[in-house]
Amino acid sequence: MKKRIKLGLIGFGTVGSGVVDLIRKNNLVIEKRLGASLEIKTIADKDLIRPRNVSTAEATITDSVSDILNDPEISIVIELVGGLLPAKNFIIDAMEKKKHVVTANKALLATYGNEIFEKADEEKVNIGFEASVGGAIPVIKTIKESLAANNIVSVFGIMNGTCNYILTRMTDENLPFEEVLKEAQRLGFAEADPTYDIDGIDTAHKLAITLALSYGKRVRLEDIYREGISNLDRQDVEFASQLGYRIKLLAIAIQRGEEIEARIHPTMIPFNHLLSSVNGNYNAFHFEGDHSGSVLLHGQGAGMKPTASAVVSDIIDIARDMEKKVWRRVPLRAFKKDQIQDIKLLSMDDVRTNYYFRFSAFDRPGVLSKISGILGSHSISIASVIQKGRKDEGAVPVVMTTHESRERDVREALEEIDKLDIVLDKTVLIRIEGGQVQ
Amino acid sequence: MKKRIKLGLIGFGTVGSGVVDLIRKNNLVIEKRLGASLEIKTIADKDLIRPRNVSTAEATITDSVSDILNDPEISIVIELVGGLLPAKNFIIDAMEKKKHVVTANKALLATYGNEIFEKADEEKVNIGFEASVGGAIPVIKTIKESLAANNIVSVFGIMNGTCNYILTRMTDENLPFEEVLKEAQRLGFAEADPTYDIDGIDTAHKLAITLALSYGKRVRLEDIYREGISNLDRQDVEFASQLGYRIKLLAIAIQRGEEIEARIHPTMIPFNHLLSSVNGNYNAFHFEGDHSGSVLLHGQGAGMKPTASAVVSDIIDIARDMEKKVWRRVPLRAFKKDQIQDIKLLSMDDVRTNYYFRFSAFDRPGVLSKISGILGSHSISIASVIQKGRKDEGAVPVVMTTHESRERDVREALEEIDKLDIVLDKTVLIRIEGGQVQ
Repeated sequence: MKKRIKLGLIGFGTVGSGVVDLIRKNNLVIEKRLGASLEIKTIADKDLIRPRNVSTAEATITDSVSDILNDPEISIVIELVGGLLPAKNFIIDAMEKKKHVVTANKALLATYGNEIFEKADEEKVNIGFEASVGGAIPVIKTIKESLAANNIVSVFGIMNGTCNYILTRMTDENLPFEEVLKEAQRLGFAEADPTYDIDGIDTAHKLAITLALSYGKRVRLEDIYREGISNLDRQDVEFASQLGYRIKLLAIAIQRGEEIEARIHPTMIPFNHLLSSVNGNYNAFHFEGDHSGSVLLHGQGAGMKPTASAVVSDIIDIARDMEKKVWRRVPLRAFKKDQIQDIKLLSMDDVRTNYYFRFSAFDRPGVLSKISGILGSHSISIASVIQKGRKDEGAVPVVMTTHESRERDVREALEEIDKLDIVLDKTVLIRIEGGQVQ
Repeated sequence: MKKRIKLGLIGFGTVGSGVVDLIRKNNLVIEKRLGASLEIKTIADKDLIRPRNVSTAEATITDSVSDILNDPEISIVIELVGGLLPAKNFIIDAMEKKKHVVTANKALLATYGNEIFEKADEEKVNIGFEASVGGAIPVIKTIKESLAANNIVSVFGIMNGTCNYILTRMTDENLPFEEVLKEAQRLGFAEADPTYDIDGIDTAHKLAITLALSYGKRVRLEDIYREGISNLDRQDVEFASQLGYRIKLLAIAIQRGEEIEARIHPTMIPFNHLLSSVNGNYNAFHFEGDHSGSVLLHGQGAGMKPTASAVVSDIIDIARDMEKKVWRRVPLRAFKKDQIQDIKLLSMDDVRTNYYFRFSAFDRPGVLSKISGILGSHSISIASVIQKGRKDEGAVPVVMTTHESRERDVREALEEIDKLDIVLDKTVLIRIEGGQVQ
């Protein structure tokens, strides 16, 4: 008789429907690869009334999660409820019932990952979470397995499709942030409350997970420096283009000796860097390994079908372990449990990179000399300047890019500059990565 | 006591040295992930005199492969000899001694893969070959594991760094093929005999492996349609740029119902397609899964360190199976053995795509009408035309792109056109993929 792996699905929303649909449509090809077929035996959701556009075939639908947790036939539980609670309890309860877990819940793993992974270890069950970072892009497997021979030097990622869609439209159509955000909401690329995306919170969740696996560290979400995109002015997008850069919300993790640098902010990336060609709602993850060199992974970081693809790849992975009666063949967090350490973060003050500044200065003689003098006195060396033609009155933008400088020096210099009476408005600062355009 | 996995290395050339060097430098981080350290116990090479720039530590160096094959302590054999024979025998012999094998040998797998995989099955040993396709880029693992829930719709790849370097330089510097080839040879990006790369043979090996795993098929190398880049004229590179395309040597596999389309040829790709931004000696693999959507992997497809990264990732993978005392957790060829079928190839005549033509025509009235008349009579519909200004004498280039047409119709139309007395030279044909520029 054909082998069947019985699954319980908790959370029958968009991604849940995608998983049901994928398994129905692709069970044949999955069976050809796995040697067993998948069966969603039970689906639990608190909302049983809302219609879904997928056939649930022979699955039992219930509003009681315990129908899944107490079913000894179900070996893998798929948690697609999202959010922290009750999702966390569902996962812990499933593990206590010796069930393996697959989840796409990045917020949960970024917040309670340490606890959840400990529990999986204690109960000797697997937990798959490829879908939590980068949708269909094989980010987790690449870190845990394909790059396992490397010291990972750096991770650069465009990890949020909503932000990348907004930034792409702002750049290509020269539109202001607010207008593009409304458009994205209309098209379903942004939520009614977009905070989670545009403030970089979603990106921080994904960076926390990626970083923990890449370096074998315990990360606290609040450790990661974070700026969103909502204050981005389209004139800076325009100046970036003139200078040869595109602006992306970049998540960055870099090994610096014993410390790790971790930050998320709008970033100028030169046209000739592949990350600057990542447009629309696509995501991309760029790893630099000490032997692999640059490895870039690009694809759909969200959405029903791509996320379902990642969820089911995890189910297949766990089913392969089940078939061989093994467990945790690859460490859950990429490193052996006793090798995982608390992170030592590089202070943001000590970060060194290139900078773009836009000063709002009165158009008076001596302004440029005054600003550049202050920058010089803080050891900040100027790489390029754009000073726009005279306006009749008021402020003119003065744009500068710098050679590599230290964040603390930059902060102190800008504080000083912003106090000048020739400076009208707070100076805009955008960091530059991926090399400087000459 | 710490666990040590003992390895035998056959072939101490560039990649072999890279593997020795990687294991020496990164054994600590590998041990943190694997829970065991790696030891190259014995290195066999027929040339023991040539100096290598790596420390071989405590390894025994020998010119006798049997020192490895007959050593019961060695559990994994790394074959980095390259070529068909004696590499094939080394692998078969190692398997008969119940040793697992890791290889980077694409020519061997593309030629004798079926036999070698059968042998691995028979002897119940693993064979890792991530390094055979795309260097450090996780191509094999992505197909076999990350995309396992998908029907793979298509694979598009820039699989040869030498060709891509040459094409990038031809495009960016407006240089002729011969000159760039010489430069590439001087810089070590091309071999003294470049045939293997520029004729697309290396690309065909990689496509054969990629295609076999993606679709679960037995592929014969000679089935794959193949054109190299040596006849590429720089005026076509220029016209491509004018039309909004870059020319790449693209390897293509597409599922067409029960049949597979498989071809390698210089291809025009629109600027806005990410594959057109893959430059220099980089490789990229673009998968379209029916659920994952587009997944693109980009990185260093060759070279000492990137290839070593892939070889050692395979060693770690096999060591993880050894640790759990399991074997072939993932099918060697992505599909269960009894599910692998002979390939049914779509005839090249039945391929449908967009085309670029450059006609060399006398500059006489009626030429355009005659050419377009013949195209029309073969159901080929023209998308755009560039006709250059009159020269004093001789031929002028007439450039056309087409809407989707059938290869057989194109071949027949061009045969007819090339016989016209107003046409001076064989018409140049370049296929267009990745969408047409409007």
